[in-house]
Amino acid sequence: MRERLYHVLESQQFDRELLDHLCALTTRFREVGKTTEGALAMKRRHVGKRAALYFTQVSTRTLNSFRAACQVLGMDWLEISDPNTSSEVKGESPIDSVATFASYADAIIMRSKLPGLAKQAAEYFDRERPFRPWHTAHVVNGGSGQDQHPTQALLDIYTLYRAFRERGGIEGKTIAMVGDLKRGRTVRSLAYLMRHYPDVRLIFVSPPAFQMEEDIKAFLQKHNIPFEETEDLDAAVNVADAVYMTRVQDDLDKEKGATPIFFQERHLKILGPHAIVMHPLPRREELDPACDHDPRIKIWRQERNGMWMRAAVLDYLLKENDPLEGMREVA
Amino acid sequence: MRERLYHVLESQQFDRELLDHLCALTTRFREVGKTTEGALAMKRRHVGKRAALYFTQVSTRTLNSFRAACQVLGMDWLEISDPNTSSEVKGESPIDSVATFASYADAIIMRSKLPGLAKQAAEYFDRERPFRPWHTAHVVNGGSGQDQHPTQALLDIYTLYRAFRERGGIEGKTIAMVGDLKRGRTVRSLAYLMRHYPDVRLIFVSPPAFQMEEDIKAFLQKHNIPFEETEDLDAAVNVADAVYMTRVQDDLDKEKGATPIFFQERHLKILGPHAIVMHPLPRREELDPACDHDPRIKIWRQERNGMWMRAAVLDYLLKENDPLEGMREVA
Amino acid sequence: MRERLYHVLESQQFDRELLDHLCALTTRFREVGKTTEGALAMKRRHVGKRAALYFTQVSTRTLNSFRAACQVLGMDWLEISDPNTSSEVKGESPIDSVATFASYADAIIMRSKLPGLAKQAAEYFDRERPFRPWHTAHVVNGGSGQDQHPTQALLDIYTLYRAFRERGGIEGKTIAMVGDLKRGRTVRSLAYLMRHYPDVRLIFVSPPAFQMEEDIKAFLQKHNIPFEETEDLDAAVNVADAVYMTRVQDDLDKEKGATPIFFQERHLKILGPHAIVMHPLPRREELDPACDHDPRIKIWRQERNGMWMRAAVLDYLLKENDPLEGMREVA
Repeated sequence: MRERLYHVLESQQFDRELLDHLCALTTRFREVGKTTEGALAMKRRHVGKRAALYFTQVSTRTLNSFRAACQVLGMDWLEISDPNTSSEVKGESPIDSVATFASYADAIIMRSKLPGLAKQAAEYFDRERPFRPWHTAHVVNGGSGQDQHPTQALLDIYTLYRAFRERGGIEGKTIAMVGDLKRGRTVRSLAYLMRHYPDVRLIFVSPPAFQMEEDIKAFLQKHNIPFEETEDLDAAVNVADAVYMTRVQDDLDKEKGATPIFFQERHLKILGPHAIVMHPLPRREELDPACDHDPRIKIWRQERNGMWMRAAVLDYLLKENDPLEGMREVA
Repeated sequence: MRERLYHVLESQQFDRELLDHLCALTTRFREVGKTTEGALAMKRRHVGKRAALYFTQVSTRTLNSFRAACQVLGMDWLEISDPNTSSEVKGESPIDSVATFASYADAIIMRSKLPGLAKQAAEYFDRERPFRPWHTAHVVNGGSGQDQHPTQALLDIYTLYRAFRERGGIEGKTIAMVGDLKRGRTVRSLAYLMRHYPDVRLIFVSPPAFQMEEDIKAFLQKHNIPFEETEDLDAAVNVADAVYMTRVQDDLDKEKGATPIFFQERHLKILGPHAIVMHPLPRREELDPACDHDPRIKIWRQERNGMWMRAAVLDYLLKENDPLEGMREVA
Repeated sequence: MRERLYHVLESQQFDRELLDHLCALTTRFREVGKTTEGALAMKRRHVGKRAALYFTQVSTRTLNSFRAACQVLGMDWLEISDPNTSSEVKGESPIDSVATFASYADAIIMRSKLPGLAKQAAEYFDRERPFRPWHTAHVVNGGSGQDQHPTQALLDIYTLYRAFRERGGIEGKTIAMVGDLKRGRTVRSLAYLMRHYPDVRLIFVSPPAFQMEEDIKAFLQKHNIPFEETEDLDAAVNVADAVYMTRVQDDLDKEKGATPIFFQERHLKILGPHAIVMHPLPRREELDPACDHDPRIKIWRQERNGMWMRAAVLDYLLKENDPLEGMREVA
């Protein structure tokens, strides 16, 4: 059997087997959590274990999503959620700060402004573990700086997986990614995962100044994943199975003269009957709230999937035995 | 049977039956909570349910009171307690921010600087629920902006209810409200509830510049609740069954030349032997701490009632069956 | 039998019997906590009890350590961790603020910038308890201002106790305290406790401007505890059983021209084979991280002991019966 992941740092770590496994586990948790009895059973899965939520870069929604995931699994958690309260300000090295915090924890979820700190911490723990056997924290990248945001990519995959589960799965689907593709961490992470789903076709819809970066395009070419680039949202909506909207990063963007690419009520008419629209939230004007009642707009389901997928990831890392063992497969 | 309240937004929503019901439930919780066994039983009442504490307007004591209420009921909770960490700063609409946060929650307790946001959120959830069946959060106004502070009014009612339970209840009592009545949310909310207790008489004691507003006075007149206005605290203390002190809002008030109206040790001598003194806290000089040892000063009991009443409110909202069912009535 | 401590305010409160008791309890908790079964049993010890973490002076690591201690014991907790969110800003007296917060709590852990507030609160509660029987909070000084940091001293004692348990205990050992001894709260608190361990010898290693204060030296002389003062770290390391490094307080120190006294890899060669090195963390350059792999460097074990010792302290305060009763002694 394949080796288990010890840390979750970037989406390149996932293969198809693990993606399918985590999706099945997420579905199982959602199902079990519907009854009080099931929710209580899940709350016994990791009682006595403890997560350390190291959020020196603030992200209220990701933090709350991980808190909720801990609650689902019955885990305790500690947190650092204010950059100014961190011991870093006392001249401590970031690694000492992380190691201190992790010394009470079974897993540390990290979101820091320091580039690469999650990876650096994982390497540090791997190196130190032989010397301090109780220092066993699994590192989960909670979306650090310019790094990836792998648990966001996983919940996006899960949202696609659920939407297409009765239509042959993600394979063969056309996925439009829309907005600021240049800096959007979520679409970059998601693009990496597309190689695990045969015959997927990508449409990148963005103003010229915000096109997908060359590294991703090179990656796609290497793995023979077809993609096209356009500014024409209507054309993309017309053919896509999934439209993944992303947020315009800040007001500066508008000043740069980029023509805004907004999904509006009129697009619902040209969107395919089985197609879906996603957005990692928060949104600005790029996705009109007037669309929210349409069942093809999956943004609120996607948001809630975050809690379940993060619970699945923590469960996978912390459970020594196969997490699905003894649980009926329902995917 | 009457329809259950789905959201708790303002004190006008409560009728006498519901007030009595919540008071009885609060007493029951207090009684049961005295033993370890009882406390554990209560902690099983809502295990697996989750509250979202949305406090973008900071209020440490109300926040802690709701946290404690969740603990009493065995509920999990998430929180946003720093206005600067809210996603609102990223250009997200407040309703999106609230909806995101509530997507993991069974109830959302809201305290925002934005006027009317709690009510707006309740309307939004009512409208959206048919489209997103898991989005079922009950909204509780936690004291937003210039809005009301209904759970404070409820704990005040409970404090009066307990104090007068062997003296015929709140009905027929004389209640003096003292201090800044113009801007004091608590006295305004409490005044609205007085219509449910026959023969109550109110005395408003304040400097002329801080008199009760016309809307409340019109309301009282409409419901034939007698009230008088005065600056004479001594006279009011002399006849009142309850003296409700409120905080001078800020130092500016003093500069406005208002004669301060302070409850001091000498007032204990003219206070009736069965009368009580209340204060929503925090206090400044308007209620001398030297009075605290007198058993008629109920401020610390009132404070602690906050936890029990808030637990009762959450229990009422979240329990499908009658919350008192199977519990011996002890009120 | 001796009277139990009600509040934990300063290290002078502890005698040898209590130190040994708390060390034994800490060891017992560590042992029991190693199995899931044991961890669950501990989580039932104080379920339904509640701590109030009053940290208006920010200390992320002490706060997290107390949070973890509450989790170990199955306690709920409330917290005030931002000085700006405190009600103190509304003109409330600090004691009112503390009393409000403590009104829901069985214990209040305090770290405030106001000198002596923990002690003041303890006196207040002792005085008020007859009048408000539910206001029973035990006060624990969590390291306030210039005050002591007694739970840090306890975890330091525990670290020494464990290190020397098979070599005759702390008695008779030579302990070097290094760094800014003038302002270092931890070394001051620890020095007080040395009187309970016969034949201990102290070496104070510091630049002249940062020598141990006269009050401590007078205390040591009074109790016939030999000490010497030096700037020679090498000589101290050569003879010490324990080297207690402390942090240089801020960059200003360097400007004062103090020769830095740093523990570096070369010191490992002259450190005795059974000697240990401690540090309360956070550290700067005074203890080279390259040393961390050496098993004599106990700083990470010391850090983790904080959680267990704090759990032991809370358990001691809150458990009416002898906390070790029914638990096999394993110290």
